[in-house]
Amino acid sequence: MTDPRPELVSYRICPFGQRAVIVLREKGVDFTITHLEPGERPDWFLALSPLGKVPVLRVGDTAIFESSVINEYLDEVYPPRLHPAGPLDRARHRAWIEFAAALLADQFAMMSAPDEGGFREALQKAAARLDSLEQGIDPGPYFDGAAFSLVDAAFAPAFMRLDLLALPAELDPYRARPKIDRWRRALAARDSVRDSVVEDFPERFGRFFGSKGGVAVRFLAGADGDALQRRRINP
Amino acid sequence: MTDPRPELVSYRICPFGQRAVIVLREKGVDFTITHLEPGERPDWFLALSPLGKVPVLRVGDTAIFESSVINEYLDEVYPPRLHPAGPLDRARHRAWIEFAAALLADQFAMMSAPDEGGFREALQKAAARLDSLEQGIDPGPYFDGAAFSLVDAAFAPAFMRLDLLALPAELDPYRARPKIDRWRRALAARDSVRDSVVEDFPERFGRFFGSKGGVAVRFLAGADGDALQRRRINP
Repeated sequence: MTDPRPELVSYRICPFGQRAVIVLREKGVDFTITHLEPGERPDWFLALSPLGKVPVLRVGDTAIFESSVINEYLDEVYPPRLHPAGPLDRARHRAWIEFAAALLADQFAMMSAPDEGGFREALQKAAARLDSLEQGIDPGPYFDGAAFSLVDAAFAPAFMRLDLLALPAELDPYRARPKIDRWRRALAARDSVRDSVVEDFPERFGRFFGSKGGVAVRFLAGADGDALQRRRINP
Repeated sequence: MTDPRPELVSYRICPFGQRAVIVLREKGVDFTITHLEPGERPDWFLALSPLGKVPVLRVGDTAIFESSVINEYLDEVYPPRLHPAGPLDRARHRAWIEFAAALLADQFAMMSAPDEGGFREALQKAAARLDSLEQGIDPGPYFDGAAFSLVDAAFAPAFMRLDLLALPAELDPYRARPKIDRWRRALAARDSVRDSVVEDFPERFGRFFGSKGGVAVRFLAGADGDALQRRRINP
């Protein structure tokens, strides 16, 4: 290993930065993390990130942007390999990683919706996406069997956020989707996933979308941070 | 090569599908292409593409979606390698490929803007993006020197579309951006790029955005298809 110690720049509630943290933890990489506040873009950061987006991984003088690119890099440089060996299998994994980004976008829309109608519409879109996912996967317990892969790291932040919502049974994203339900439970129990967010993540998550006027925060398990924490850790 | 002949499914004017065509041509791959009309999503296609988006590459029973994933696959399976050998260099290339996707989104917004104000706003956003690009690159003549890379395949469709617009000098995206200007000329002259679209691409491009009510079509070099064609081929 000749590369210097990598530095991850992210927001504490950024699901894309969290993907990189999960991979760094899976590989036991010695790294530092610099947190910005959501929307904060100091000049030194804009100089690193031409798209102005987190996460960025700084490796010596090189800044790597986009979470999927960061994770590909980490996987190539630090063992164990989390991508499968065959090119076609790897392509299938990469495609589902892109799919996870679309699910995160649905989720952001859900959490940001300013009224009940918007929330239900966004939830319906996410539900259709989850139906495609349920049909396309066969987890056991992870995406590709017993071995944790980059696809797992890509989906875990989406499931962790869905887990925070205490939705009525008819809106429960896991009901009637047994494969996803099994998968998200396995991910929630994984050390690298549990340790991929700050202690007060649920509260920060709620505050962020509450400050944007999102009605979905009413489904966060009350204003009681302990309850949120319990729900997250014991799904 | 044990994999069966790949089939690309795309729209004739899709810049993301075009990225894959460029790579297939660079590598001299024997492939078939199936064109859908924009917005057309037959059931067989939705069964392949869980995001409902083109392009999709079908390889035997496996469907690979997302252009960057398709091109990674093609690069791993068919020589010559268009990605650099070092992981950090490769990460830098991948990050700029993501950047190109953002530029294409700007361009779509430019072409779709229903009024002059919206067009100028979108153009300004694209111009800021091009400024970041001009600062971040050092082409000679391609992105990474003399060798054509996947980054070149990712940007070529964006430049080809910008090349179709005859903008007044003060809006010219290449003026005062000499590095991008040199790069896009080298790309426009490359066989794989020239042969990556159908013969009547400029007319199809104009018709598509014209039917969406985009005011930018007035900057397409007249309604004269020959003029468009000349401008494309002799930039």
